[in-house]
Amino acid sequence: MKAENWKAEILCVGTELLLGDIVNTNARELSAALKGLGVGVYWHSVVGDNPARLRQAVETARSRANLIITTGGLGPTYDDLTKETVCETFGVPLCRNGEAEEMVRAWFRATKREMSENNLKQADLPEGCTVFPNGNGTAPGCAFTKEGCTVILLPGPPREMRLMLETGVIPYLRGNTDEVLVSRDIRIFGMGESAVEARLHDYMESLVNPTLAPYAGTAEVRLRATAMAPDEAAAEKMLEPVIARVRGELGDLIYAVDEPKLESVCLRLLLEKGLTFAAAESCTGGLIAKRFTDQSGASAAFMGGVVCYTNYVKHHVLGVPKETLEEFGAVSEQTAAAMAEGARRVCGSDIAVSVTGCAGPNSDERGTPVGTGFVGFASPEGTLVKPIQMGKDREWGRIYAASFAFDLIRRYLTGCL
Amino acid sequence: MKAENWKAEILCVGTELLLGDIVNTNARELSAALKGLGVGVYWHSVVGDNPARLRQAVETARSRANLIITTGGLGPTYDDLTKETVCETFGVPLCRNGEAEEMVRAWFRATKREMSENNLKQADLPEGCTVFPNGNGTAPGCAFTKEGCTVILLPGPPREMRLMLETGVIPYLRGNTDEVLVSRDIRIFGMGESAVEARLHDYMESLVNPTLAPYAGTAEVRLRATAMAPDEAAAEKMLEPVIARVRGELGDLIYAVDEPKLESVCLRLLLEKGLTFAAAESCTGGLIAKRFTDQSGASAAFMGGVVCYTNYVKHHVLGVPKETLEEFGAVSEQTAAAMAEGARRVCGSDIAVSVTGCAGPNSDERGTPVGTGFVGFASPEGTLVKPIQMGKDREWGRIYAASFAFDLIRRYLTGCL
Repeated sequence: MKAENWKAEILCVGTELLLGDIVNTNARELSAALKGLGVGVYWHSVVGDNPARLRQAVETARSRANLIITTGGLGPTYDDLTKETVCETFGVPLCRNGEAEEMVRAWFRATKREMSENNLKQADLPEGCTVFPNGNGTAPGCAFTKEGCTVILLPGPPREMRLMLETGVIPYLRGNTDEVLVSRDIRIFGMGESAVEARLHDYMESLVNPTLAPYAGTAEVRLRATAMAPDEAAAEKMLEPVIARVRGELGDLIYAVDEPKLESVCLRLLLEKGLTFAAAESCTGGLIAKRFTDQSGASAAFMGGVVCYTNYVKHHVLGVPKETLEEFGAVSEQTAAAMAEGARRVCGSDIAVSVTGCAGPNSDERGTPVGTGFVGFASPEGTLVKPIQMGKDREWGRIYAASFAFDLIRRYLTGCL
Repeated sequence: MKAENWKAEILCVGTELLLGDIVNTNARELSAALKGLGVGVYWHSVVGDNPARLRQAVETARSRANLIITTGGLGPTYDDLTKETVCETFGVPLCRNGEAEEMVRAWFRATKREMSENNLKQADLPEGCTVFPNGNGTAPGCAFTKEGCTVILLPGPPREMRLMLETGVIPYLRGNTDEVLVSRDIRIFGMGESAVEARLHDYMESLVNPTLAPYAGTAEVRLRATAMAPDEAAAEKMLEPVIARVRGELGDLIYAVDEPKLESVCLRLLLEKGLTFAAAESCTGGLIAKRFTDQSGASAAFMGGVVCYTNYVKHHVLGVPKETLEEFGAVSEQTAAAMAEGARRVCGSDIAVSVTGCAGPNSDERGTPVGTGFVGFASPEGTLVKPIQMGKDREWGRIYAASFAFDLIRRYLTGCL
């Protein structure tokens, strides 16, 4: 079957999802994996461990999808009913599967745990199915096809589902599919979503395959270009003119294609050039340092930072002159410049960024309006400061300010500051 | 209506969910909030930005639920179709809502951004609905009831959804429900989930109303006690003995009841005592400062911090002696002590914490095993250092180490260090 002819539904079974105890990572991981295969997912559904509603959900899925992937309800207890309900709905007998029984017994032997008889219930599978071993637990998964609809039953615990997806489901579906989908993630900083969309709206509308669609990020914009083709190379080729067109429209507002974060672009560029940076953070309160050091390997490019949440620290640790703080205030171009220069000096880095601003919810003692901010950048070539508008939302404003600082590093290192 | 008579479906609209780009946190948060109100959620569904499938999903939801909460598709662009489709399905006119229009205009005025005409599409709402302001974005939400089915339309971006849920949806549903469910969130740091559960297992099993159930937090444990009663006072009274029993078992491992975070407990206690703190962070890389300054009002209790990601910064900014770094290494009790003392001195704070450790994935140049860490605490009374085990997962380890530092502040301020 061609990838584009699959219409998939992911049906997750588990009361804990409906109670909000856990987030449905299975649906997300299955969706991402299917996207990678070019298989379209059109529905996610969740029902609890209730036979009537589960049956209804299976029937609904069967009426609209030709690929149904379930998670959950394969355990050994009385409220695990997925296999029973699916088999009943599809009119497929549920019988003891020798291969699965051996897997269950082997798991208990390997983990040296005692097996109770109801564990063998997990070896009852739809007649004639393909069995998927469970490398992280007892319940095997399986797949069968009846009247043009393929059903794949997977365990609910994410560790078990994930491993079975990689080792069982993806190879199984690859073996049954002949087309691939390739996507490119274009990441933009410094222009809002509606402005990006306005610029590209007609072009996006005109595309069928490949396609181009916007996604909102936090304080940034993402565009995804996607092509479907018989093989990866053909899909890549189809995407080239789309990327080129977007680059033509947005130029250096594009900070990356297929690289997930501003800070990871900065890390890569700093390592490439053998340069280090430091950060002086007032209103971002450590967010720049935190985001950068979330990345393993950050220590090769980050000397350190000073969170100068008070004028005391701005003056005593970073050496911002008292007169600058008194005359212009903590939230000022002059203070931002002195902070960046101070961070560069005291941390011994090649370049440094600084952020000072009023993140709110209240104005500072000088009455600086909430949202006013300045981002400084110091390098051997000199210092510059950019005013920024952080808005009224504290969290958004802090993320935006930190991203703005990373974007200055990115621009400096790519020669477009 | 009684809470138990609601049958809720959560319908999330967004192709990005079906593509697996993002995980459906909205469904989880809505489910958890509805559980808190005693409202049963029986289905989650996800469809993309496709009018036919969206319409079918709304019709299915209407046929089985009497409370439908949608997220997503309220934006200003052509593929945002939730309101249009819901109104069509329910036969309710979609018209320009004056209150909503004013909210949209006010948002653009406040954020000083230019409004395009298509932004006003967001002010078109179902006739006669209750409007929910959007504190974090432009699209207002709303609720209406038609023929016994209540429909609530919420924006998709999690920050917008979450705030609207708290400030709009929960009060709205409370006003339409006659039984109350009251929960207490008991937060524990310093004991693992299985140990907490083992300690309380029989007691938890014995409870019916109220109930007590464990929730895994990140590097902490949460217990939720819940009572259902005709009114809040009666429910509160039922919860008192449960809280007392848990306190009896866990003592000062409980850092808070109904206070969401270790850092917020620290902020409250610091403000109460009029004390300030500072942080010297190596492996946590700014996470302590970031978490503390996520809170508005942090500036009254936080002087600042030094992210000393390199020995250069440990020595030059914090004054950790070169001999200490050479003899004992950066990841050592001695360095942690000198870091905390240095942070206290250079930032001019009353107390200070420090973290140094090997967060992984690789050992440092001295071969310190991944996961080894030290948390220091300096006060006028002296300095102490605790060894910690951060495990092999970088993210978990950093969160745990930062939480451990906050817990030391909490213990110092409550006299149980």
